[in-house]
This record gives sequence, C-alpha cells and structure tokens, in this order.
Amino acid sequence: MMNPISSPLLADLYQFTMLQTYLEQEMNEIAVFELFVRKLPPGRNFMVAAGLEQVLEFLENLHFTAEELDWLATRFPPHVIRYLEQFRFAGDVYAMPEGTLFFPNEPILRITAPLPQAQLVESRIINLLHFETLIATKAARSVLVAPDKLLVDFGMRRAHGAEAGLLAARASYLAGFSGTATVLAGTMYDIPTFGTMAHSFIQAHSSESEAFEHFARSHPDNTILLIDTYDTEAAAAKVVALANKLQADNIRINGVRLDSGDLAQHARNVRRILDDGGLRDSTIFASGNLDEYKLHALLAAQAPIDGFGIGTALDISIDAPALDCAYKLQEYADIPRRKYSEGKATWPGRKQVYRLYDADDCLQSDTVALERDDPQPGEPLIQPFMHAGRRLQPKLSLHALRSRTLTGYRRLPAAMTGLESAPAYPVTISDALKALAAQIDRQYLPEA
Amino acid sequence: MMNPISSPLLADLYQFTMLQTYLEQEMNEIAVFELFVRKLPPGRNFMVAAGLEQVLEFLENLHFTAEELDWLATRFPPHVIRYLEQFRFAGDVYAMPEGTLFFPNEPILRITAPLPQAQLVESRIINLLHFETLIATKAARSVLVAPDKLLVDFGMRRAHGAEAGLLAARASYLAGFSGTATVLAGTMYDIPTFGTMAHSFIQAHSSESEAFEHFARSHPDNTILLIDTYDTEAAAAKVVALANKLQADNIRINGVRLDSGDLAQHARNVRRILDDGGLRDSTIFASGNLDEYKLHALLAAQAPIDGFGIGTALDISIDAPALDCAYKLQEYADIPRRKYSEGKATWPGRKQVYRLYDADDCLQSDTVALERDDPQPGEPLIQPFMHAGRRLQPKLSLHALRSRTLTGYRRLPAAMTGLESAPAYPVTISDALKALAAQIDRQYLPEA
Repeated sequence: MMNPISSPLLADLYQFTMLQTYLEQEMNEIAVFELFVRKLPPGRNFMVAAGLEQVLEFLENLHFTAEELDWLATRFPPHVIRYLEQFRFAGDVYAMPEGTLFFPNEPILRITAPLPQAQLVESRIINLLHFETLIATKAARSVLVAPDKLLVDFGMRRAHGAEAGLLAARASYLAGFSGTATVLAGTMYDIPTFGTMAHSFIQAHSSESEAFEHFARSHPDNTILLIDTYDTEAAAAKVVALANKLQADNIRINGVRLDSGDLAQHARNVRRILDDGGLRDSTIFASGNLDEYKLHALLAAQAPIDGFGIGTALDISIDAPALDCAYKLQEYADIPRRKYSEGKATWPGRKQVYRLYDADDCLQSDTVALERDDPQPGEPLIQPFMHAGRRLQPKLSLHALRSRTLTGYRRLPAAMTGLESAPAYPVTISDALKALAAQIDRQYLPEA
Repeated sequence: MMNPISSPLLADLYQFTMLQTYLEQEMNEIAVFELFVRKLPPGRNFMVAAGLEQVLEFLENLHFTAEELDWLATRFPPHVIRYLEQFRFAGDVYAMPEGTLFFPNEPILRITAPLPQAQLVESRIINLLHFETLIATKAARSVLVAPDKLLVDFGMRRAHGAEAGLLAARASYLAGFSGTATVLAGTMYDIPTFGTMAHSFIQAHSSESEAFEHFARSHPDNTILLIDTYDTEAAAAKVVALANKLQADNIRINGVRLDSGDLAQHARNVRRILDDGGLRDSTIFASGNLDEYKLHALLAAQAPIDGFGIGTALDISIDAPALDCAYKLQEYADIPRRKYSEGKATWPGRKQVYRLYDADDCLQSDTVALERDDPQPGEPLIQPFMHAGRRLQPKLSLHALRSRTLTGYRRLPAAMTGLESAPAYPVTISDALKALAAQIDRQYLPEA
C-alpha cells in the first residue's frame, strides 16, 4: 500500500517523462523554480503564506519504495529506476516564512536543485502551498472581522478529503483561529479542539431536557448545549431550569450553541432568557453556514454572540476556492529563463522581495528584485530554509507561527483589513529585473 | 504517527463527547442515519453518487491504535478508552451503487448500527461521499458535452490536498473521464495515466526544436509536444520539420498540446500546418483553465481538438465547490426521528428510492418511500452493501463502475444532459412517509 500523503508518485506523469529525458540528455545542472500567485482572489487585499512546513517535510522524507519502483518499472527504462532508487532531495529551499502577508507576482518559495529533482517535486509543492495559502488567506478575513471572538474551524466534513480537513485546521489556526473541531488535526498539529453535541444527540433522547441533563452530567466541566433542535427560546428556558437543578451538584452550564434561523434575533432572545435566569456567565456560540460576511453582519447588529463555528465556507474558501498560482523555471545552468505563453509571462531569475513600512510601521510598498546585485530598501522577506536537503532553521511551533501572523496583521493599513477591495497595494518590479526580462526577450523570442 | 487518511480521530470532537454520554446512559440501541443532499448545485440537473468504496474501506478497517487511545485518554475517562480499545464497526450499510444518478432528498447511504458506532463515523463518511459525489457530478458535465473526446484529469496540483487529488481522479474516471495525470491515482485505482512535458522542459533547453527532439528520442512511442511556450504556429512548423527528420529513425509524433491563447484559432492553424506537413494522424490536445463551458464553446466552434486536460475547474468543482448534504438520525431504538431546525427539516425513518422509466427507457420520476410496508412502482435504487461490519458484495472494478455510469447517462432525458438547468426532475414523497412525518410532528413538537 503506497502512502497517499507522502508517496513521490503524488506527481503528474509528465514529471517522470521529463525526468527520463533529462537523464538521457545529462541535463543535471542546477535549476531554479519559484512559486508565486498571479493575482489576488476576488475581494482579497492580501494573501497569507502557509504550507511551508509540509513542503519541507515532504522534501526531507522523499524516497521511493520498492513497490513504487516496481510500478514505475512497468513504464520507464531501467536507468530511470536506478536513478530513483537513490533519490533523495538534495536541493535548497528559500521561502517567505509561514504567516507572511504577500501579494501577486511575489515569489513565496524558491527551489534550487539539479533539474530532475527540482522538476519532480513540482506537483506536490504546488498542491501543499496552494491549499494552505488559500485557507489561511480566507481565515484571515474572519479573524480581522472578529478579532476578539472565539473562532473555531468546523469544516472537515465538507473539506475536500481528509488532508484538506487537516490542513484547513492548521492553516486557519496559523491565520488566527482559536481552534478546530477536528480531533486528528488537534493531535497532529497541537491545535486546541472544540466540540459539543449534534442534533442527533437531542433527537436520540426522549426529550430535549433529558438530553441536556445527560450531557451536563457527563461533561460537568464543559457543558455547551445545542438549543435549536425544536424551539430555540423554549430550549433556552429549559437550560435555565436545568442549571438550577444541577446547582446542587456543582455542575454549571458553560454555554449554548445556536445553529439555525435568525442568529442575531435568537442570540438576543436567548441572552435575555439566560441573564434573567441568572446565567450571565454562560456564553452563546453560533454556527450554521457562517462566513466572514455573516460574522460582520452579526457584529454590526451587536448580536450577543461570544464565538463562531465556521465550516464549509472556510475549509473550501467557498467564494474563491483556488489561487492562480504557478511554479516556474526561472533559471537553468546559470542562465535566467522566462515563460512567454500568451497572458502567462513570468519574471526571470532568482528573486528577493523587499518591504518598506511607513511612519506608522504599516506596510507601504514592496519591490520584487533580483537576489544578487540588486539591493533595494526595505526588509527582505525571503529566507533560506533548507540547504542541500537539510533544514537550516529549527521548526517553530504552530502556536509561535500564529502569534507572528497576528502581529503581522497589526501592520496592515486600515483600508486593507476590511472585507471590501482596497486600492491595489504597490508592488514594484526593480529596474534590473525589468532589464533582465527585456534582455531574455531579445535573446529568445526571435529564435522562436 | 497517526494515519492521516484512515485514523478514527478523523472525526469531530463532538463525536467523542456524545459517545461518552451514550455509554454512560447505556444508549446502545440501533440508530439509523441517512446521508442525502438537500438541493442541486446551481446549473446541475442531477448528481452522480460516488465514494461508497472508500466509505466501506473506512468502516472495515476502523480501529484505534495505542497512540490514538493515549491521546484520547488525556481527554476522556477510562471507560470510554476501554470501549474504544475493542471498537470495530459492526453495523449495516445500504446505499445507491456508485455511479447512480440521484436527486435532492434521496438518501444515497444508510448506516444502521448501535448509536455510539453510527455517530462516531459521521464526519469521515460525509467527508468522503460529499467530495467524490461533488467531483463525479462536475465531471459528468464534461463527459456529456464531449462524449467522444479524450478527457484527462489535470487537477491534482490545485486540488485541496493529496487525498482530494487522488479522489478527484477516481471520481472523474468513474464519471466517464479517460484518465488522469496523477501517477499515484493511476497506481491506487488502476486508472489510465497521461502526461507529456511542462513549459519548463522547453525553457531548460537552448531551443524549442532541441527540446522537441530530445523528448521524441526518449519517448519514441508516445511523443506529445507542448507547442505554446513561445509562438504556437512557429512551433507547429518545427514539429513538422522534426517529424521529417525522425522518420528515418521510425519515430513519429503522436500529437501536440496547446495550453494558452485562443485555443480554437490555434487549433485550426496548427491542424492546417500539421496536415500540410503530412502529419494527419498527429492529434491536438488542449489544456489551460478549461471547464465544461469552454469545451462546449470549442466544440460548437468546431475546433479540431481531439482531447482535453481539465484541471482546477474539475478537481475543486469550481463553480459549485460544496454540496448541501447532511447525515441525519432518522430512527433510534425503533422510533423514527426527525430534525425540525428552521429551514432544515428532514424526512424520518428508513427509506427506499424507487425509479420509474418512460417508454423510451429514460428516467421519468422517483418516489422516496419508507423501506418497509410502503411498496412503490419502479426500480429500488438502494441496495445492501455491508452487514454486521462485513461486505455483502464483491468489489467491482472502477472500470466496471465507469461503464455502468456511462450506461446510466443514456437513460437521461435529453433536456437533462445539457449545461443549462432543465425543469426539476420529479421526486415524490410517498403518502406513508408524509403521514409518518406528520405523526412525529404531533408527538414531539408540543413537547418542545
């Protein structure tokens, strides 16, 4: 059984057909690929880089098992199989750290390795960085809309497969969410987990009151009761009655969850019922097809809601479920390269991104420049993470990465923190980079 | 290391909090959950059931490892851990076979098992069936638009994680695609794989002609050349020149691939250049942000294209990246149950779906009825697949399932095969089912 997450066969077939030719032509010089996003998704003002940790793990562990080689041997000649038997990724990785805010045409990852290696890892690298960046970028919007609320990822069931559910939990926590409902994401990434009960729990009991009491007695320290199965306000009154009954046993009701109907109105009604019943400390948590726009509306309506579960809209970035990103060859054998295909031209060479901040320490402008001999004012965003196949930096905890991301949001100009499109953030291409592109155009295009 | 695909911790935390209460209250009677979709995604006229095989594998193999139990023991009392140590799924599964065309409110899966078991598996069952059904439903549209073309899944890199890429390849093949570019999907599911070269391959060479020749000499039996890196028509002329040069070595050019620009116009130009150059048998394959609408337009324009690679739009079902589906408790301890939450009411009890065909053997209407004592005219769509945790039917090959799906399309009324919304297909709720729902309403709602 091949490992569906870490197998090197998680690649497009053309990675192997190209590899065969590279080996036969002895095209083993150093290649430089960079990954970037061509444009912002609709409504977004910035993106949040995420997924680098998974890319580094993938590259560190990359090797072919006997079973994988057996399959390849049915399609490829023996010299390819012999090469893959020995295969370990021995290249360099430069990248923006996870949680960095970035913009179109800025490389967020650079792979420098012998061409067959750098090409082979393309599909999985895109697959990982694309998805986590997509979700972190989506999650940031809810975090900026509701910075003081408990925000929980509820989306695993409608995420696209198991890994999407796990990585969505990771990426949303990195972007500032409070935690996830997905147990395995909690165990794998040390993310706080949250969970209460489903409607089926209520329905399986002979009455709602009985269901509430059973749950509270099982979970005396963490009782959140789902109150919308039949009639929300009637259920809130039952919660008050139950709280009085359980007081003698020192069990308190931590809160209630709403999952349907007019959440703002229900929350106001329920808050009044709980307060009047002496449950001022019991919180109200809301869920049910939420996204950042609904959060914004609920907060604008001053709905007394303390936390939100966000599911489908988050885990599939429902209004923009893909980024227009690419992993492109920028240099081979010390010669810069450029793609010209209509509407898809790229900037050549190894690049660095420099960021300037204004007097308030907010983002002011970025410059994309050549890595060498093209210094620009500002903070360089791209750092070395792997050399010759080995990590250069100790792994940061996800919690530490999350803190950095939250700090990064404070440097966003106010206009960029909202849900609407702000004026485009200025990203300049350096003169030297433009000159290099023009030089390559003169060199290659007449040939074509 | 927990298995990110098969771990039983791939669940929402509330599955475990509820399980604890069920055990403490000895609520171990048989529960019946059904999975259904509430409404058609925009523009779709039907859905294609997919993912059952992965659900059955998940249920067959479900167990807790020592590491998983250790983690749970930090959150749950010893009696829960003891129960989970022994855990094997011992329930029944009824379902529509994969590839069945279905409609809103029709259950496509039913789980019948002791309540703690049936509840624990909820999240992953939804996760699997939701995604594969989503993708099969999307893929069917391209297959119906271009039934005679080679259709290849190109989407893994922008699919949402590894499993999404793999399952999208499986679901699209099930729905009638010809194959996938994803090698691991080919090995895991025995799907034909396709692949040629990337732009980076061309760019890494000192000239396009050299790149073409190197590739052809490596792959004399399967040479498809990507011709849009610099100038598409100029590249087509180079292909002709190369074909003449390679004739002496008995190497022929199978085809070319276009990936950018006005595909219809380029295809016409390239077809003429290839034909004039004596390459009438070389095919033209197209890719680049394609979906079923662009396929339809290219075919309507009579673009001479023989096959299509469809990527992002397919693997994330980009115009409708989620289904409004639910896994709901319909019966517990022999008593039918119903969810009432505003806008989300469900039909109670164990159900069967009966399908009637018209005189042309095309789909005419469906009836959702109770499984017992509520016979309806037509073909029952729901079959038993697992009893007491064991499979009842031998596993069909994916190829056989695909053939069944293609046969199923032939029974669609013509209006339902297009890309536009047809009048809603008639799905009737049986009188007995309506009566049962009304009876439960009388029984439960006054209590609430």
